[in-house]
Amino acid sequence: MNIYDISKKAGVSIATVSRVLNNSSKVSEQTRRKVLAVMEENSYTPNAFARSLGLNSMHTVGIMCADSSDVYLAQAIYYLERELRNNGYASMLCCTGYQLEEKEKYLQLLLSRNVDAIFFVGSNFVEDTPERNGYLYNAAKKIPVFLLNGHLDAPNIYSVLCDDYQAILDITNEVLRTGSERPIYLYRSLSYSGRRKLAGFTDACLEHGLSFEEERSFLCPVSLDNTRVFLTALEEKGVSFDSVITSDDELAAGAVKYALASGRRVPEELQITGYNNSMFSTCSTPEITSIDNRVEFMCTTAVSLLMQAFQHKNIPAKTVFSGTIIRRQTTRT
Amino acid sequence: MNIYDISKKAGVSIATVSRVLNNSSKVSEQTRRKVLAVMEENSYTPNAFARSLGLNSMHTVGIMCADSSDVYLAQAIYYLERELRNNGYASMLCCTGYQLEEKEKYLQLLLSRNVDAIFFVGSNFVEDTPERNGYLYNAAKKIPVFLLNGHLDAPNIYSVLCDDYQAILDITNEVLRTGSERPIYLYRSLSYSGRRKLAGFTDACLEHGLSFEEERSFLCPVSLDNTRVFLTALEEKGVSFDSVITSDDELAAGAVKYALASGRRVPEELQITGYNNSMFSTCSTPEITSIDNRVEFMCTTAVSLLMQAFQHKNIPAKTVFSGTIIRRQTTRT
Repeated sequence: MNIYDISKKAGVSIATVSRVLNNSSKVSEQTRRKVLAVMEENSYTPNAFARSLGLNSMHTVGIMCADSSDVYLAQAIYYLERELRNNGYASMLCCTGYQLEEKEKYLQLLLSRNVDAIFFVGSNFVEDTPERNGYLYNAAKKIPVFLLNGHLDAPNIYSVLCDDYQAILDITNEVLRTGSERPIYLYRSLSYSGRRKLAGFTDACLEHGLSFEEERSFLCPVSLDNTRVFLTALEEKGVSFDSVITSDDELAAGAVKYALASGRRVPEELQITGYNNSMFSTCSTPEITSIDNRVEFMCTTAVSLLMQAFQHKNIPAKTVFSGTIIRRQTTRT
Repeated sequence: MNIYDISKKAGVSIATVSRVLNNSSKVSEQTRRKVLAVMEENSYTPNAFARSLGLNSMHTVGIMCADSSDVYLAQAIYYLERELRNNGYASMLCCTGYQLEEKEKYLQLLLSRNVDAIFFVGSNFVEDTPERNGYLYNAAKKIPVFLLNGHLDAPNIYSVLCDDYQAILDITNEVLRTGSERPIYLYRSLSYSGRRKLAGFTDACLEHGLSFEEERSFLCPVSLDNTRVFLTALEEKGVSFDSVITSDDELAAGAVKYALASGRRVPEELQITGYNNSMFSTCSTPEITSIDNRVEFMCTTAVSLLMQAFQHKNIPAKTVFSGTIIRRQTTRT
């Protein structure tokens, strides 16, 4: 039951229903009573945010992600859509790619559809500078904005994220404790989450007294083959490493391919860790030790927070939860 | 630019714009001219189907799939959303699961949002009996229905699909030609596409004079571990096999896990083939010979057909394209 159904049942225009919701004086008392009666009969609760804006809620939420075919993002979309639907909301999906200009354009598209809120999934939506984050601030002026695995401090922006810093710190510590002396770190981007992860790796190395005279972290091309080639080239350049910590299972799966191709025994001669606990970690042989960053929990929490916000409840601007190490065959114990 | 923008710019209600689009006599000549002028100024082309139904098009297309986190379906969603957006349409996503009752319920949800068309992605949407397919026939009475990798012969239903029968026939033939004598076939469902694939396997075996006294095809639980356990149990029950043809890369990746665990050399003692050419086929070691069933081509073709239909062009009810064998390390040459 949405505003369209109400208008139909009451035999009035949508604009009239909207006016009733907004206590406009332009509606006759008789009409107001009729509309309210229909709402009551159908236990209709108007969307609080839409109401405050005087818009007609479509009971639709936008989901923006860079690429819905990415394993991690695909899972998040699945859980978000399920939870939203269970709460009576439809999902409008927008895959933006990684360019700011495109993100802004697609955001306008969602806003023009009068969505009631937007979930930005993946920390690549948080840019480096306030100017480049302007599109998020602007969206938040109109509707609640949720950052899933990103964080930005601004009114009407809510962040739900895994503590990626702590997770990488913990897993690096574990690899160093079990004898690794020359760890390297592979990442695919320095998004908000990417920077947090890198800090976790660096701090663990510093805690163990490792020097940073030589470079230990590398932006690495994704795809199994590219990662394998990259590590082979690194070795040929004389970079010595006995563990590969990665920001992403796909990079770790590529590192496993490198180990198999170069004949280095895992985990005896080379430890490898992934992140996301995705199918890449179980599909590889040996199976990859990874971080479970609780995609399902993140999504159900975010939708639950949104529903509370719609009911005028005060919700936290930032919700951080911890990940868990899932130990498999690529690390020593 | 959609009907809402037009109504805003022309300073009239949406209902009035709709009446102009439908040549209703209830609009004054002055208003009609004003609305048409705004449309012309903004090069607005009304959605043909919506127009014929007298509805206000939302320029939105529904995408229904069982599970957006499935690797194959996630890719399809990505390509569909991209192509639709490039044509000015938003995507409303619905993940239905595999139960008929749920599919029907979510279809009603999409229809209540006045979507302009629906893509049903995955052949699990085509049921066994006309009664159980009633929900598709009903949807097609209102808007064009596209079945991606499914087929159903009915007015306003358009099928775009890979020739799964031929692809499995070809890959099975290749495995038998290179010396396999006791092939088995693993599948995860007998959907429309599932039945076609099984027929391809059976016909290839018959062409090679193999008997079917013993069972050669098995409904197998998915997840790498489950498939490994299933094959181990099959072996213990005395079923002898020297090749595993599968309907799906994930099953094939499970078969690779079985081979590694049981010490059978691939492809010398055991050949394995997958389907979909997904990350499962490249992530496994050895990498899996698979069928590329052209997800991107399927999606761009389907969206292109829809756009032609919106322009009143006559489009084919069924478009079938062939797959390709991608040869890797799990088959002999």
